[in-house]
Amino acid sequence: MSTRAGIVVTGTEVLSGWIADRNGPWVSQRLLELGVDVAHLTVCGDRPDDLRAQLDFLSTQGVDLIVTTGGLGPTADDLTVATVAEFTSRPLARDPEMAHTIESVIRSWRRYSTVDELPSSTIAAIEKQALIPQGAEAIPPTGTAPGVAVPAGEARPAVLVLPGPPRELQSMWPTALTTDTVTTALRDRVPATLETLRAYGLSEPDLAASLVDAETTVAGFHALEVTTCMRGGELEISTQFAANDASAYDALASFLLERHSDRIYSTDGRAVDDLLIERLADRTIVTAESCTGGLVAARLTDRPGSSAYMLGGVVSYSNDVKTGAIGVPADMIAEHGAVSEEVAVAMADGVAARLHADVAVSTTGIAGPGGAVPGKPVGTVCIGVAVAGRDTFAVTRQFPGDRQQVRELTVAAALHLVVDTLGFD
Amino acid sequence: MSTRAGIVVTGTEVLSGWIADRNGPWVSQRLLELGVDVAHLTVCGDRPDDLRAQLDFLSTQGVDLIVTTGGLGPTADDLTVATVAEFTSRPLARDPEMAHTIESVIRSWRRYSTVDELPSSTIAAIEKQALIPQGAEAIPPTGTAPGVAVPAGEARPAVLVLPGPPRELQSMWPTALTTDTVTTALRDRVPATLETLRAYGLSEPDLAASLVDAETTVAGFHALEVTTCMRGGELEISTQFAANDASAYDALASFLLERHSDRIYSTDGRAVDDLLIERLADRTIVTAESCTGGLVAARLTDRPGSSAYMLGGVVSYSNDVKTGAIGVPADMIAEHGAVSEEVAVAMADGVAARLHADVAVSTTGIAGPGGAVPGKPVGTVCIGVAVAGRDTFAVTRQFPGDRQQVRELTVAAALHLVVDTLGFD
Repeated sequence: MSTRAGIVVTGTEVLSGWIADRNGPWVSQRLLELGVDVAHLTVCGDRPDDLRAQLDFLSTQGVDLIVTTGGLGPTADDLTVATVAEFTSRPLARDPEMAHTIESVIRSWRRYSTVDELPSSTIAAIEKQALIPQGAEAIPPTGTAPGVAVPAGEARPAVLVLPGPPRELQSMWPTALTTDTVTTALRDRVPATLETLRAYGLSEPDLAASLVDAETTVAGFHALEVTTCMRGGELEISTQFAANDASAYDALASFLLERHSDRIYSTDGRAVDDLLIERLADRTIVTAESCTGGLVAARLTDRPGSSAYMLGGVVSYSNDVKTGAIGVPADMIAEHGAVSEEVAVAMADGVAARLHADVAVSTTGIAGPGGAVPGKPVGTVCIGVAVAGRDTFAVTRQFPGDRQQVRELTVAAALHLVVDTLGFD
Repeated sequence: MSTRAGIVVTGTEVLSGWIADRNGPWVSQRLLELGVDVAHLTVCGDRPDDLRAQLDFLSTQGVDLIVTTGGLGPTADDLTVATVAEFTSRPLARDPEMAHTIESVIRSWRRYSTVDELPSSTIAAIEKQALIPQGAEAIPPTGTAPGVAVPAGEARPAVLVLPGPPRELQSMWPTALTTDTVTTALRDRVPATLETLRAYGLSEPDLAASLVDAETTVAGFHALEVTTCMRGGELEISTQFAANDASAYDALASFLLERHSDRIYSTDGRAVDDLLIERLADRTIVTAESCTGGLVAARLTDRPGSSAYMLGGVVSYSNDVKTGAIGVPADMIAEHGAVSEEVAVAMADGVAARLHADVAVSTTGIAGPGGAVPGKPVGTVCIGVAVAGRDTFAVTRQFPGDRQQVRELTVAAALHLVVDTLGFD
């Protein structure tokens, strides 16, 4: 990819970690889709010197475009446009058309019929937001802050200035892409493809070893940008490549699939959730959860339209609820313990019967930090699967980590166990 | 604050926006708590040149400490330690103690009794992760990747290298702070205090207006660094200040509490979850969820020891489960609709009775994007609360946003409704 970009996220609230940045990742993904190589993402507070330093840094890194987000508001600490004007050596000038647009937006919100009725603080805010670096292109606002696109100068990249509220930024993005500034800056981009393999039960070192081997056996391997990411027990292998390197990617995918056929479960980007829905076909599913406390049900109701297959579930956290609500025999719990394959099977059978579903999945385990018993350390989890017309079964897993991680890994294991079980239909 | 730091987050998966960065915000908050001014946060992919450029940039910005996260794994794209070694002009050397530590961790996970049984790919991974820049301090790993603290050099800040998995990073942080490298780099910091007010049902513009007034009426206001953050329907007002500005903070807190006494529910940092547990006293709680699909139960089982008060719940996603499992009359659903205060009341009463609990909370709503009916647009949610010995009731709320946001706002509203209801005991 020959076109490089940098992203500058402004805002003390982001830099301080008070709020998670949603703009950087969003802009990054859009640029990658366009075939632009995002080299750097930087975050600074509402301090012009730090912002200026980041703009200068990106300029030295040879990027073709800098996208900034935030700092366009009406208050005194919103300084992005002024700082960019200085960086690009273009003095600020009032854009009468933008002033009119912002004023109309505010009047429509506040139901003022004429500009004379606006309070002076509002007029000051409008005038501030209508200041644009000379010769820059203004991008009409969705809220009250116009965007700005400043063409590249000598030894200085083009700068696209967008507002901080994610909805405003996202709705202004298509217009921003049509500006002369941005089309010129990105004219040499080479559209790239992103493909994702998903694996469950594959460790990073094992994958690393395979990638080392692939380096010498897969033709064109070095044209591929491979990234691996372990998350919630799943390993995501993402590869980015230019259109004419597609055969190298195909060779790599084949190589990895052959090596790890039992671990790689998705080659087209689909998540385990998608496979579960597909394999359910027209069947319904319910849950009986102890240690996951509702997380499996929450995951199964996460997708729009999930009522087509997900009927509901029981969070049987206490033993009384296990017995009363889904019929796990009290003496079974006494004999084997609540965390046992016997109980997991009874939970799955019980909830399937009580809620009249075709498929049921159950979890019972020790998420910690307390609750360990001899032979069942923290992280011990039993997962049961019931499928109508087949024998219900349960497995025992031992997960590492803290309470949150054990719960998270249990959810992933439960979904995969259902998918694997339905796969043998 | 006289001590400045920069944070470098590495990882193509973060830079590309595939996963949200959790380490930058976390490290930033920890540094701010210590009284360190975080000047820049930068993100780069797994490319040594870009990482090196960011390290050089931060060096020119006069920071005293650079904290890097990620890139310590066993795969070939994990290059942070090598790049930092080059940046600090300290060649890599094998740390035999670390090699032994990592090997022990892996053997305990995989139950290998001797090192000879380890596959060669694992041994290669251990050897790579045991390489440390000469003269640097190694920080023992929680996972398999040791951290590294490299003392400051001439015109070069100290560098603290930590792993990417948030749990590993967080558990290694306390040890990292005790290294000579970090204590020396931060020796001039001025410890700051962080206090948090939590509000529910308070809008950002209303708070902003109060802060503008506070500026002129609260003595010492300008010594306070106030940040506000809206998250899941809650507004967090975090204020950071030096020890001798405590009276200014007290004045601000009193001012805000007087203005928004009905909205600010916590002045000591406690979350709604803590208040709920406190107000339950010795009572038990259960849930009946439709639109939230288990998220309320998951939240109530999130804390260690939650089995003391949380018995369980029913995810009554389908109408049949509402009727069959918790006794909501089918004709009530037919008459009022599943999303109605009548059904929310019946759900709360039904689940309290069936699961034998003192308190119950129910949710039924239209999370979207489909499902809207005349008079009940997407975002309409009814929440019911049953408390033994009192009349069960329900309220209707209208939440903005997409499916995920409606579900999230419903969870917050449900917890607050329970807390408010128990508060009137």
